[in-house]
Amino acid sequence: MHSFTELQEIIEKEIGGLEFSSPPEGLFEPMRYILGIGGKRLRPILVLLGANLYKDDLSKVCLPAIGIEVFHNFTLLHDDVMDHAPMRRSKPTVHEKWNSNVAILSGDAMSIKAYQYIGSCEDKYLRDVLTVFNQTALEVCEGQQFDMEFEDRNNVEVDEYLNMIRLKTAVLLGGSLKMGAIMGDASSKDSDLLYHFGVNLGMAFQLQDDLLDVFGDEAVFGKKIGGDILSNKKTYLLIKALELASGDLEKELKSWITTKEFDPEEKIKAVRDIYEKLNVQELSQNRIDEYFSMCLEYLDKVDVLAENKKELYTLVKRLINRAV
Amino acid sequence: MHSFTELQEIIEKEIGGLEFSSPPEGLFEPMRYILGIGGKRLRPILVLLGANLYKDDLSKVCLPAIGIEVFHNFTLLHDDVMDHAPMRRSKPTVHEKWNSNVAILSGDAMSIKAYQYIGSCEDKYLRDVLTVFNQTALEVCEGQQFDMEFEDRNNVEVDEYLNMIRLKTAVLLGGSLKMGAIMGDASSKDSDLLYHFGVNLGMAFQLQDDLLDVFGDEAVFGKKIGGDILSNKKTYLLIKALELASGDLEKELKSWITTKEFDPEEKIKAVRDIYEKLNVQELSQNRIDEYFSMCLEYLDKVDVLAENKKELYTLVKRLINRAV
Repeated sequence: MHSFTELQEIIEKEIGGLEFSSPPEGLFEPMRYILGIGGKRLRPILVLLGANLYKDDLSKVCLPAIGIEVFHNFTLLHDDVMDHAPMRRSKPTVHEKWNSNVAILSGDAMSIKAYQYIGSCEDKYLRDVLTVFNQTALEVCEGQQFDMEFEDRNNVEVDEYLNMIRLKTAVLLGGSLKMGAIMGDASSKDSDLLYHFGVNLGMAFQLQDDLLDVFGDEAVFGKKIGGDILSNKKTYLLIKALELASGDLEKELKSWITTKEFDPEEKIKAVRDIYEKLNVQELSQNRIDEYFSMCLEYLDKVDVLAENKKELYTLVKRLINRAV
Repeated sequence: MHSFTELQEIIEKEIGGLEFSSPPEGLFEPMRYILGIGGKRLRPILVLLGANLYKDDLSKVCLPAIGIEVFHNFTLLHDDVMDHAPMRRSKPTVHEKWNSNVAILSGDAMSIKAYQYIGSCEDKYLRDVLTVFNQTALEVCEGQQFDMEFEDRNNVEVDEYLNMIRLKTAVLLGGSLKMGAIMGDASSKDSDLLYHFGVNLGMAFQLQDDLLDVFGDEAVFGKKIGGDILSNKKTYLLIKALELASGDLEKELKSWITTKEFDPEEKIKAVRDIYEKLNVQELSQNRIDEYFSMCLEYLDKVDVLAENKKELYTLVKRLINRAV
């Protein structure tokens, strides 16, 4: 069994060694740039961990795993264009460093490279791996579409939000594990269990991310706190708060999310205070705990030696303990 | 053997019957829109014609053929965003009718649907079909990148231009035929011959399109004449004219392509006159004739009964006779 850190090193090395055919250099440089500015490489590592439950030799799983990372970065690249995001991982986004056209076209080429890498799996897995990937990739687009539609709506409900993050974020974690399991010759029962493990992990992870964006410690969380509050992002916290607030608290919350002119620090503090009064932090934490325990239940049922599942248990534990 | 028109009807019917999973409707409506506003369906028909050379039953080739049309329309959708094109086939483009974000994301989802449809071919062809498609799709992006880069350059050479249109346009015609041939159990020699037939056909087609844009008959060509001249598009004609012009003619041509203020009709007429003086129409026609004869040479060599190749010969003849 490889450790998470070992797998992370394998992935980094593979990414560093990728050779994109060129010319035109202008198409491939942005790919190298976005792939080079880091990230946790969680998805390709999940592919490898999924396979590693069943086999030791991961040499033929590496490139398909990289394909998932390339796909993930393609979605980030296009999402950043759509969100007009200036920065990503403390670096200028591709459309800022170059321009939107470069970001669109390099993204398109990345999605094709992703298919090339994923399709480099062994012939006997090709059909199943592609079926999972196609389904997952389409769902990621559906999630992004819902996310954009929610920006213009003021009546988003909790279930709609949960469905959106399931599509936009969680299914790709599940899909990564399942693709890995398939390439490890897992039973279809195990592959499905690992899929659901990953989806529930992803739900917990995203809800926790939303929570940390409001209540986290900047130094530990690694990005500025309060961004979601400033942009009125319809997270679980805001949706729940709007559902629960009444009277003065409702008026105050609605005033903060409609006012165009405000002092950022003041708004963050005020909305956070409202969240505290409404207890939405705890409600959110309960949901997160539920998703974490569901994901562990799925992992328990996966039919391999507990020893082999150690890295996945450790990963869940590490995520549970991300500092709030 | 099916006729071109029969195949066109099959394709139209299939496209009309496509069901996209939804919600979110906002993701799939633009797909239906762009697929619904027509086009010649040349690429999927080439897939079917390629397979039909070797087998009668095309039922399992239809959906992969549709995948090629979906991919082609995805590239049109994103190209239109990058070019800020307001119209496509006399209808508002997707980013005009909705907005750029919709066009980007629906395009992304279309490229995934394309892979789903193409991947629906029989298992025994999956690896080979995907290999051809991935390579072709990436080249189409490379071609678009070169096309965009050429806009900002004044020293584009004929060979660079020919390479650009080969990538952006011609390889997808070749790739469509080759994928069809693979799904018809053609020999790899025949598949390659058909690929080169398609690429040369595509080169002739694009050069002819450029020529018709300047010297064509609007009623027959089906779109407004002179667009390339007005936008200083670096076509074979302009590149060749810049290469050949000297003295007053050179000065005059350069003045027309740098002047910001001009009467459109006057510019079209003036540049067309320069092209005529430099004889670039004939030079271009010679190139076109060369590509057409190369494509016919490849088709001659394809190892099936002449009778079976009839539709492809007819197609070439029809394209040769597009009115200039």
